[in-house]
Amino acid sequence: MSPLDMLKKINAMAEFNRWCGIEVTVAEPGVVEIQMPWRPEVGQYSGFLHAGLIGTLVDTACGFAAATVVGPNVLAAHFSVNCLRPAVGQKFIARARVVKPGKAQVFTSCDLFAVDAEGEKLVANGQTLLTVVQAG
Amino acid sequence: MSPLDMLKKINAMAEFNRWCGIEVTVAEPGVVEIQMPWRPEVGQYSGFLHAGLIGTLVDTACGFAAATVVGPNVLAAHFSVNCLRPAVGQKFIARARVVKPGKAQVFTSCDLFAVDAEGEKLVANGQTLLTVVQAG
Amino acid sequence: MSPLDMLKKINAMAEFNRWCGIEVTVAEPGVVEIQMPWRPEVGQYSGFLHAGLIGTLVDTACGFAAATVVGPNVLAAHFSVNCLRPAVGQKFIARARVVKPGKAQVFTSCDLFAVDAEGEKLVANGQTLLTVVQAG
Amino acid sequence: MSPLDMLKKINAMAEFNRWCGIEVTVAEPGVVEIQMPWRPEVGQYSGFLHAGLIGTLVDTACGFAAATVVGPNVLAAHFSVNCLRPAVGQKFIARARVVKPGKAQVFTSCDLFAVDAEGEKLVANGQTLLTVVQAG
Repeated sequence: MSPLDMLKKINAMAEFNRWCGIEVTVAEPGVVEIQMPWRPEVGQYSGFLHAGLIGTLVDTACGFAAATVVGPNVLAAHFSVNCLRPAVGQKFIARARVVKPGKAQVFTSCDLFAVDAEGEKLVANGQTLLTVVQAG
Repeated sequence: MSPLDMLKKINAMAEFNRWCGIEVTVAEPGVVEIQMPWRPEVGQYSGFLHAGLIGTLVDTACGFAAATVVGPNVLAAHFSVNCLRPAVGQKFIARARVVKPGKAQVFTSCDLFAVDAEGEKLVANGQTLLTVVQAG
Repeated sequence: MSPLDMLKKINAMAEFNRWCGIEVTVAEPGVVEIQMPWRPEVGQYSGFLHAGLIGTLVDTACGFAAATVVGPNVLAAHFSVNCLRPAVGQKFIARARVVKPGKAQVFTSCDLFAVDAEGEKLVANGQTLLTVVQAG
Repeated sequence: MSPLDMLKKINAMAEFNRWCGIEVTVAEPGVVEIQMPWRPEVGQYSGFLHAGLIGTLVDTACGFAAATVVGPNVLAAHFSVNCLRPAVGQKFIARARVVKPGKAQVFTSCDLFAVDAEGEKLVANGQTLLTVVQAG
């Protein structure tokens, strides 16, 4: 199974990912891209993308990037998010990469872009430290 | 308006908070508690609470705690989350507090508990650094 | 060997800890306190304690707290620091605790206080995620 | 005064930077490189570079990168560090850049390399969120 097919399958198993409308658009060893459309249900009180969903996209893209290198049995131990600009757009693209893989833990990084008629704009970035768990 | 009424109003204005079923249950100066029920739509691929929703609860409770001290015009600049244990329960309670208020920025901290028949269990913690924005 | 004796021994083995003048003053299972005196060599450009030394005290106290629970074979994987107030004082006290121990990783937390004639003041806090490494 | 001259001047004013032997080697708008030699006094208990000094290099390089864009009146509010590999080398190079400048806060990022006879190796990375303070 290709990395892209593996991630699409995992993505389809996560109910919250389905509700978000997250799609996996790129998956190569150590590099992943996911997308999510804007709709009002993902907004915070002033109509920007809710920071919780910024975190969702960062965490999801980072976890998927780790999975392309060490397989799907990874869990986020720590993640952090910088909200650089108001996250406003018609859709959102998260691009994550593995910074340092390992047997026990994987360090990853992610940039989040908002897309509108004028193009892409970097609105957030983040990092996730994942623990490799034993399959069972 | 009491802090609790102010936060209930803000919470009701955020579409994503409504979808999550987040309720504000305690609000005093510098201290807030919010709750969210479990349902399958908030799960990740193995049926635990999605890390993105752990982040949502941390970020929301921290932002609300800041609002009790400096008012509602705050935006998260940075937040981080530690996933301590699998987040499994019938409902989730986030308790946040202001660590250090300021004119320009507010430092906050949050513990997240999963609740089931056996009681509460700490499943995550986190921190949010909020920027105070000028109303207008 | 008591936790306090173990940590004093580790502390004495670290050349940078000796240069800093770090002393271990409390060590119980999961809880540690260390102290460091102010002197001009630990200052940044405006005479406050350098943020790098704030990080040093947070990281060291957290690592020592982890060592009281899982032994000395731990390495910091990630740490973060909030600089709450200018760190000015005659000495600095870092108090750390284990939030969640584990076989593979240990989550810890730390508060840093500056001490002067008027007493203690919280100037920073932080968190460290440590990896348990195999001795050998 | 060029960015490089400004940073060399600030660097010389910080007693701890001088003790560390930190040198500013590159400074352009939004981009900075600093270097520090290894010596035993910067080691932790097993002889690697102490995590506190990894944090020092990340925080210093990030603060200097911010200063090239918004001037020297910046203070670190939050910084985080990922320790990717044991930091062992003859010298260390930190390369930082501004991710998002602003009037009130500046987001920055840094990679830390250890250098030995075989070349450079990425050993840590980190992020710093700086607050712009009013001069006076």
